[in-house]
Amino acid sequence: MRVIVCGGDGFCGWPTALHLSVRGHDVAIVDSLARRQWDVELGTQSLLPIASLEERLQRWEELTGRQVRVHVGDLTDAEWLAGVLRAERPEGIVHFAEQRSAPYSMIDRQHAVFTQVNNVVGTLNLLYGIKEIVPTAHLVKLGTMGEYGTPNIDIEEGYIEIHHKGRSDVLPYPKQPGSMYHLSKVHDSHNIHFCCRTWGLAATDLNQGVVYGVQTAETAMDPLLWNRFDTDDVFGTALNRFVAEAATGHDLTVYGAGGQTRGWIQIRDTVRCIELALLHPARPGEFRVFNQFTEQFSVLELAQRVAAVAPSLGLTVRIAHLPNPRVEREAHYYNAAHTALVGLGLEPHRLDDHLLRELLTLAVQHQDRIVPAKLLPRVSWR
Amino acid sequence: MRVIVCGGDGFCGWPTALHLSVRGHDVAIVDSLARRQWDVELGTQSLLPIASLEERLQRWEELTGRQVRVHVGDLTDAEWLAGVLRAERPEGIVHFAEQRSAPYSMIDRQHAVFTQVNNVVGTLNLLYGIKEIVPTAHLVKLGTMGEYGTPNIDIEEGYIEIHHKGRSDVLPYPKQPGSMYHLSKVHDSHNIHFCCRTWGLAATDLNQGVVYGVQTAETAMDPLLWNRFDTDDVFGTALNRFVAEAATGHDLTVYGAGGQTRGWIQIRDTVRCIELALLHPARPGEFRVFNQFTEQFSVLELAQRVAAVAPSLGLTVRIAHLPNPRVEREAHYYNAAHTALVGLGLEPHRLDDHLLRELLTLAVQHQDRIVPAKLLPRVSWR
Repeated sequence: MRVIVCGGDGFCGWPTALHLSVRGHDVAIVDSLARRQWDVELGTQSLLPIASLEERLQRWEELTGRQVRVHVGDLTDAEWLAGVLRAERPEGIVHFAEQRSAPYSMIDRQHAVFTQVNNVVGTLNLLYGIKEIVPTAHLVKLGTMGEYGTPNIDIEEGYIEIHHKGRSDVLPYPKQPGSMYHLSKVHDSHNIHFCCRTWGLAATDLNQGVVYGVQTAETAMDPLLWNRFDTDDVFGTALNRFVAEAATGHDLTVYGAGGQTRGWIQIRDTVRCIELALLHPARPGEFRVFNQFTEQFSVLELAQRVAAVAPSLGLTVRIAHLPNPRVEREAHYYNAAHTALVGLGLEPHRLDDHLLRELLTLAVQHQDRIVPAKLLPRVSWR
Repeated sequence: MRVIVCGGDGFCGWPTALHLSVRGHDVAIVDSLARRQWDVELGTQSLLPIASLEERLQRWEELTGRQVRVHVGDLTDAEWLAGVLRAERPEGIVHFAEQRSAPYSMIDRQHAVFTQVNNVVGTLNLLYGIKEIVPTAHLVKLGTMGEYGTPNIDIEEGYIEIHHKGRSDVLPYPKQPGSMYHLSKVHDSHNIHFCCRTWGLAATDLNQGVVYGVQTAETAMDPLLWNRFDTDDVFGTALNRFVAEAATGHDLTVYGAGGQTRGWIQIRDTVRCIELALLHPARPGEFRVFNQFTEQFSVLELAQRVAAVAPSLGLTVRIAHLPNPRVEREAHYYNAAHTALVGLGLEPHRLDDHLLRELLTLAVQHQDRIVPAKLLPRVSWR
């Protein structure tokens, strides 16, 4: 299948591009390289050193004989994007190309406006480009489980059947996102749904849980293919931060009580979910929503898992409860459906001690690249 | 009460500013005057000639002795907006300052992106400005009934209690907006709700129905105070278009079967709803939603009402069913709650033959200002 991976230089996009390439798809990466600039802005860096996109793709071709084309540019530039779509004529369009950090979006007004405009306009340009140039292409868009918030009822996959005053309908699941970033994904979902209804586009919205882990079979092949491993307070997700903290002798920084429960997924499963969605496309006019995660954990449970495994590497760690920089419920009901991708064949990798030891080992090996001051939360929701 | 009316030069904002001023509030208008430029862009004009904002306010002061201050500028300019908030320190902020035409937003990609960025960024800037400068101010934001779409269950006022798998919660009412414009209002609603939850802001979202009519007691006082009367395909709503068509001997242009049912409200009631919301503010942290309309009509019913009254002015009209330029259901269930504003004291003006004759008379008097080619739909949803 001819596929473009928008955001193909990022933490999810890069391993996805390689996974699709090795599985025989004809892949092009579309990326503005903005994520690397945000590291510069924030004074942080990936715990694993990452090669330039050019070096990455050259090494990939040397190792596998497979070419991955590259288009460097920004989805907010509609004319340029139209040129890419005309050149590539993709059958599948994977769209990771958004600012994806909740804390980054909450730094200040400028970062909030940037995140929403960047994400919403990029996606609008892509929708118009699909409509005009490749109307039968299947859009696989990354959403987030955070769109739903923490309602007191079960979370379903995108829609819910509501019975009300003697009538019923299946309607979009209500959204209660928890940051300016999560809001941008809610806006995208409504925009894409409209374009499916109105123009007959085919789209799959993957409401992904929090992603953890680093390497996939492909990225682990060579240091020049290594994936990024974010452990800072702005782009690092909880488990990756805990691992970095354990490796460097810092307390594990649980925000508040730690009862915040979310869906989680390994990066190894992310890449497989994307291919499953591509191989089983949405129908024309369909806005299909899958919840893309494999297990539910509270933040405190994850810290406890890391603390339990760390001694086997000679590390002793403590769990610290910090004042929560976010505004969120720290104890709540949470039960979210996630059967659609399993129905398409996903066999989940569960979080196990082996993976935790692998992550801790990487963090110990590269601990000189961790910036201790950037482990503690610097961005407040208030 | 110290009030700023953002968008106070527009069709709803201007009569609202005067209504609040005459009722004793201390009013300032904040407007970019963009609406006048869109007339230039589209080659159309208000059926009633409207004076400049400066002339309007000078005449208002001459007639009533009341001053209304003006700040000309754009809400997307955050620094300027912050200066306005610091100067005015409003207790109430009425926010009409958005691009409000569905067809305008559907002209092409540029107009879609403009509408969403303009509306979302302006509102985000206002939210940050309130948070930082006037955190106890009450935001009264204009939404639209079009946010809900046409679900097969009753529409409630912003929230719905959902019973699901043995549990229940009150959640935001699901949204199925029907244009890039309506989507922008859905995005706003989610953004404002978040800021109420997270920062403790107080906001009322008025999901207004389609507004018809022209004058209020205040705008009718003098030709220099006249309100705009849009009858073109892009900014004219159905009833106003029908009136202009009847006055100029054109068929009434019903889109499709005409069974599209919506909530409707007279401009005379709009201004009263705004004051009611201001006098009974939301609590800190509350995102309150009122459905602001007084009656439900199908588009065909409205055309029939106009056709029935027109002969009393010597006009004979026919109803024409045009191919629908929009993508929407032309026959559907529709029953929307609208009791909250009545509970605060609203006594609705119903659509009656007297008002229809008043509108037809205005349209006949000013028929030389109607551009016939701009009565037929030029913008397609497809």
